[in-house]
Amino acid sequence: MKIAVLGYGTVGRGVVNIVEGRVPQVEVARILELPDRCTEPRMTPNFDDIANDPQIEVVVECMGGLEPAHTFISKALTAGKSVVTSNKAVVAEYFDEFVTLANAHNAGFLIEASVGGGIPWIASIAKVRRIDEVSRFSGIMNGTTNYIIDSMAKQDLDFDVALGRAQELGYAERDPSADIDGIDVRNKTIISASVAFDVACTKELPVTGIRTLTKRDMAMFRQKGLQVKLFGRGVQREGRYAVAVEPVAVPRTSMEAAVPSNFNLVSLEGTTVGPLKFYGQGAGSLPTGNAMVQDVLDVQAGVQPRYDFSRGLQYDPTLLSGDYVFRTSVDAPHDAEWYAADAWLVHHMSAVEARELFDQVQQRDSQAFMAAISKED
Amino acid sequence: MKIAVLGYGTVGRGVVNIVEGRVPQVEVARILELPDRCTEPRMTPNFDDIANDPQIEVVVECMGGLEPAHTFISKALTAGKSVVTSNKAVVAEYFDEFVTLANAHNAGFLIEASVGGGIPWIASIAKVRRIDEVSRFSGIMNGTTNYIIDSMAKQDLDFDVALGRAQELGYAERDPSADIDGIDVRNKTIISASVAFDVACTKELPVTGIRTLTKRDMAMFRQKGLQVKLFGRGVQREGRYAVAVEPVAVPRTSMEAAVPSNFNLVSLEGTTVGPLKFYGQGAGSLPTGNAMVQDVLDVQAGVQPRYDFSRGLQYDPTLLSGDYVFRTSVDAPHDAEWYAADAWLVHHMSAVEARELFDQVQQRDSQAFMAAISKED
Repeated sequence: MKIAVLGYGTVGRGVVNIVEGRVPQVEVARILELPDRCTEPRMTPNFDDIANDPQIEVVVECMGGLEPAHTFISKALTAGKSVVTSNKAVVAEYFDEFVTLANAHNAGFLIEASVGGGIPWIASIAKVRRIDEVSRFSGIMNGTTNYIIDSMAKQDLDFDVALGRAQELGYAERDPSADIDGIDVRNKTIISASVAFDVACTKELPVTGIRTLTKRDMAMFRQKGLQVKLFGRGVQREGRYAVAVEPVAVPRTSMEAAVPSNFNLVSLEGTTVGPLKFYGQGAGSLPTGNAMVQDVLDVQAGVQPRYDFSRGLQYDPTLLSGDYVFRTSVDAPHDAEWYAADAWLVHHMSAVEARELFDQVQQRDSQAFMAAISKED
Repeated sequence: MKIAVLGYGTVGRGVVNIVEGRVPQVEVARILELPDRCTEPRMTPNFDDIANDPQIEVVVECMGGLEPAHTFISKALTAGKSVVTSNKAVVAEYFDEFVTLANAHNAGFLIEASVGGGIPWIASIAKVRRIDEVSRFSGIMNGTTNYIIDSMAKQDLDFDVALGRAQELGYAERDPSADIDGIDVRNKTIISASVAFDVACTKELPVTGIRTLTKRDMAMFRQKGLQVKLFGRGVQREGRYAVAVEPVAVPRTSMEAAVPSNFNLVSLEGTTVGPLKFYGQGAGSLPTGNAMVQDVLDVQAGVQPRYDFSRGLQYDPTLLSGDYVFRTSVDAPHDAEWYAADAWLVHHMSAVEARELFDQVQQRDSQAFMAAISKED
């Protein structure tokens, strides 16, 4: 089977390496590259060379970003080619549109690599959904922030030092905003909710990152037997759903607290199968390339995921609620209680209410930090 | 699609409940039951009623034990019916024979439920193998012993008290030998190695359980920053493989140490995907039933795992080696060093050598305990 790879960066090279080294039944026939980087005959800077080639059955998009990825994916699906993508931003933004196109043109749209890198997360959700409803999912979906938090915890580092090390190791971009402000996890949460709940997920979810997390915050939670992790999560019940991205303080004895370095751990709860957790490399050339080649092999095997977002689940942010800690010099509201010297706790708020209160706090204390307190399971 | 269920105990009822409640495209047409328990027209005590019914496409075996399960599975495969089984004992004993029969009669042989209950472990190994070699696997594959160890750790219980609670909760049999002596994990290790390494796995592997684990042992390891768990594991390299079942002392900060109650956590290392871990309910009516119904749905979707054990990997027990601690009143051998007041450590032995030394120790001290010390990852 002939495929084309769009983009020849870290992930694109991983796909090509794996196919050429390990998957003889697949051929990388074309690679889309910038004009001045086309060093092989199969490389082209012109997407139409790929879209118009009837021999190419699968387009593997690893460019990232919204445009031109959105246009290329749409054209490929319209041409009846299956699309495999690792691009969480474009899937989160246009999932519904891509699914409609894929169904209309009997093409596959496969997104395993967009969440959790090499972890078989999307395929596992889809498999669980053959039998069960997924009532909730949650997890550590961003390796960069887990690396930062894990380094702060194990080596007692300041946030900026840990971030600097993540950048040196190539785990974090020079502009780390997408990771540390939770944007990357937001996209992965939207995608996970879409697959788990069969819904065109809202894009207006509460998102809070870990930019203001300090060594002292780590120590404060440690004293309570807790450790902060950045979570994406979603719940569904009775025709309604909610999603959020926020720091969560979990028990130090939990599996989530034990996740080391830049690894990911994603969990779901199915009606009959119960809780399942999946752990692995959430990024990187070979793990992410592996997930994309797995999707290519699924296309070859005739496995074509069919998404249907027509069930009409309603977004209800009150479904995700609990206790929240705010570490800030700003005075506590009247319904708060003291949590530590510089921190107070509010019981029973929704994730949206917590995010709104945190906005107010941040206007007067830009270095404030917020975390949900996980309920005991 | 019509299926027959063999055995109507915990797992069989789970299968029937899930199919009838959630999977309208499958019908449980026949149930094999003891003569005095046949309370419905579709129940029969006669397996030939199932083997000779051409409408039944899949036989779901949840009887357990070697016979008559072995005979019934063989007959069903010979009749060209696909077989789904949760029976780790019969698969571990006859895997090679069943695969030969299945291939000869173009029938499927699906075993997801035989290891890790509801965890998609077997299917995940098979998926990883589409691209990667699996260089090693390991894990907590027995919920009963994990429950016992977790209770001892968290509630400071004696072994017998923890075992009693596991029996009260239905996690352990009245005769708990298969669990606490490692027989159940042995069978699951043989099956996992067969799938991960494509080999008719040896049945002569070293097996050590946790029957003699004490509160004081737990405290000894805790002081070293470790916690004991019962592991099945296997490694493969350069045309050779090894497998073992034994207690392993893992860092208290590891994911494995954090596995609570009766849950399982199984891990593998793939060439390009890297490390993956899978967590969930390793037993129980609905989780195990779920895994079996997933296998039935795979048969319906035309997904038919093909095992091929002909690559001729050689068993080489020296591949699994490391440091071992023996807690015993027996004098230490000359190459041992003290580990604690009543315990000594031997460096660099194979799992087989450790098991042989433990046999010698146990002849003089039947209450001795042995554990491998996990290497830092």
